[in-house]
Amino acid sequence: MKLTSEDAFLELIDKHFPRENQFLKMGRGDDCAVIRGGSDLCVSSDLFLEDVHFRRGYFGAEDIGYKALAVNISDIAGMGARPLGFNMDLMIPWGLDRDYWNAFFKSMASLARQNDLILAGGDLSLADKLGVSITIWGAAGPGGKFIPRQKGQPDDIIFTCGDLGLARVGLLSLEERGLDARTSYPQSVNAHLRPKPKSMVSTLLSAAGINCLMDVSDGLARDLPRLLGPHNGADITIGDDMIPSEVRTYAQAKDVAPEELVFLGGEDYALLGTADETTFLEKVAGIPGIRKIGIVTDKAITLNGEEYRRQGFDHFG
Amino acid sequence: MKLTSEDAFLELIDKHFPRENQFLKMGRGDDCAVIRGGSDLCVSSDLFLEDVHFRRGYFGAEDIGYKALAVNISDIAGMGARPLGFNMDLMIPWGLDRDYWNAFFKSMASLARQNDLILAGGDLSLADKLGVSITIWGAAGPGGKFIPRQKGQPDDIIFTCGDLGLARVGLLSLEERGLDARTSYPQSVNAHLRPKPKSMVSTLLSAAGINCLMDVSDGLARDLPRLLGPHNGADITIGDDMIPSEVRTYAQAKDVAPEELVFLGGEDYALLGTADETTFLEKVAGIPGIRKIGIVTDKAITLNGEEYRRQGFDHFG
Repeated sequence: MKLTSEDAFLELIDKHFPRENQFLKMGRGDDCAVIRGGSDLCVSSDLFLEDVHFRRGYFGAEDIGYKALAVNISDIAGMGARPLGFNMDLMIPWGLDRDYWNAFFKSMASLARQNDLILAGGDLSLADKLGVSITIWGAAGPGGKFIPRQKGQPDDIIFTCGDLGLARVGLLSLEERGLDARTSYPQSVNAHLRPKPKSMVSTLLSAAGINCLMDVSDGLARDLPRLLGPHNGADITIGDDMIPSEVRTYAQAKDVAPEELVFLGGEDYALLGTADETTFLEKVAGIPGIRKIGIVTDKAITLNGEEYRRQGFDHFG
Repeated sequence: MKLTSEDAFLELIDKHFPRENQFLKMGRGDDCAVIRGGSDLCVSSDLFLEDVHFRRGYFGAEDIGYKALAVNISDIAGMGARPLGFNMDLMIPWGLDRDYWNAFFKSMASLARQNDLILAGGDLSLADKLGVSITIWGAAGPGGKFIPRQKGQPDDIIFTCGDLGLARVGLLSLEERGLDARTSYPQSVNAHLRPKPKSMVSTLLSAAGINCLMDVSDGLARDLPRLLGPHNGADITIGDDMIPSEVRTYAQAKDVAPEELVFLGGEDYALLGTADETTFLEKVAGIPGIRKIGIVTDKAITLNGEEYRRQGFDHFG
């Protein structure tokens, strides 16, 4: 059965997403929703478009519904914040049946529920291709502050949480072989289709009082300079323990350096932050999944001892 | 010159849109922007997509930039609220040069400035067609409350502010004849390309303390039942004075009833509200542009004395 009217879509959305929670004064169904006032809110928007960010050939409806929201939750995690609600603008191509959209919304709603996130509103439109634009907002974590970029000082420790390079191998192998890539690169494919926002670690980092954090969505090579800002550099070490085994296998098969795959990455949805040495040793190092990858300097960026030209993934490249 | 990198776009955006104002604690450039806390916020999202909501054949870059934001401001006006900020997700097709985007942003930024609206963030992506997804937020107007739908009671006065049907004639004539339609239907074309959100009147209605308001974006025939809710009806009179002269001319040329064009409408971006008779007479009737169009009943909807079947513009139709 096809969904042929706006009302049928709205009914399906109502089936999966509650209309209100404690963070909304008024939910979906009016010109606007009303967010309960109080503390500062952080806000971010991300596009998730067919044939740009995903392909329907190897993304199931449930993967698309999941990832469209997950990448937005990751932006909130990159502020050390807690997501509260989101709006969704949905671009709907012809020819997808009710089961497809049911799977899409069900998967997204499940992720929303896990994060206590309310769908506050949005817009629906026909379009040539499937696309999702989500705007998400959140409140500061237990540390009481939003954690910005560019606050690191020379000698601060640089750390990550989350695998780097795995999602890149997932994307490359999916583009080469479609879902057959799952046989050789199951973790990589999963990292690309179903990235896990690092919300729990973000909360712990907020509580630890670190002062510089972001989410790595365009790859370490491109996002590290954004973390550091114009005046700092970094000495980065990508050791053997940072190279996921599938990345090593893929690198070997393609005769490229595995460190390059890790450093270029892309769509890792890891966290990247800095902390002074004391804070790092006393409060950060013990958080599960945290890995020291280098230190802030006042010189250029070096990777395993060699200067690295600044590059990475440009969405327009 | 083409804009070939994300950075070039961000630079152009920075040229037109300031990064911060008093309503933001932190502006563009991090994972999120931070909205200063305090009062409740209303929030809304709208899509504005090429070949669905506009055609590049007769929408100039400056019309697209303007209207994408204007339709969102209208949603805030529909709550009797004051817009504060917005996020923009922008879908960018190849082949449009810097002058094009400069005109697009310049026009949008001018409208934002007139409304004291800050661009807080967003996302950029290549896409097959041009598209804009904007999420806008605002604070309550001088009445201190957001004005919802479905609060009208039988015998309340129903009123509008803004021409109905003109944008529909604009759309139809533009689709038929492209920009040549300007010769015969200049006001209609302008109503479709450059709708004016009724922000000033919305503010006055908030101050007047009315309790039911919305913006008419899908046409009166479709939006009136949304205003009334499931239990109320209305007796609507579309008198001669409500029919813009271009609508009358177009109706004559096409041999249709002009009232039908007014009632079906679509993309009018007018305001539609109700008030009890005393409030209406004492506080609303004198607001410039307000026009009484009928009364709330507990029966069906009638138009000029005859029962009207509920229909209107379905974005999926």
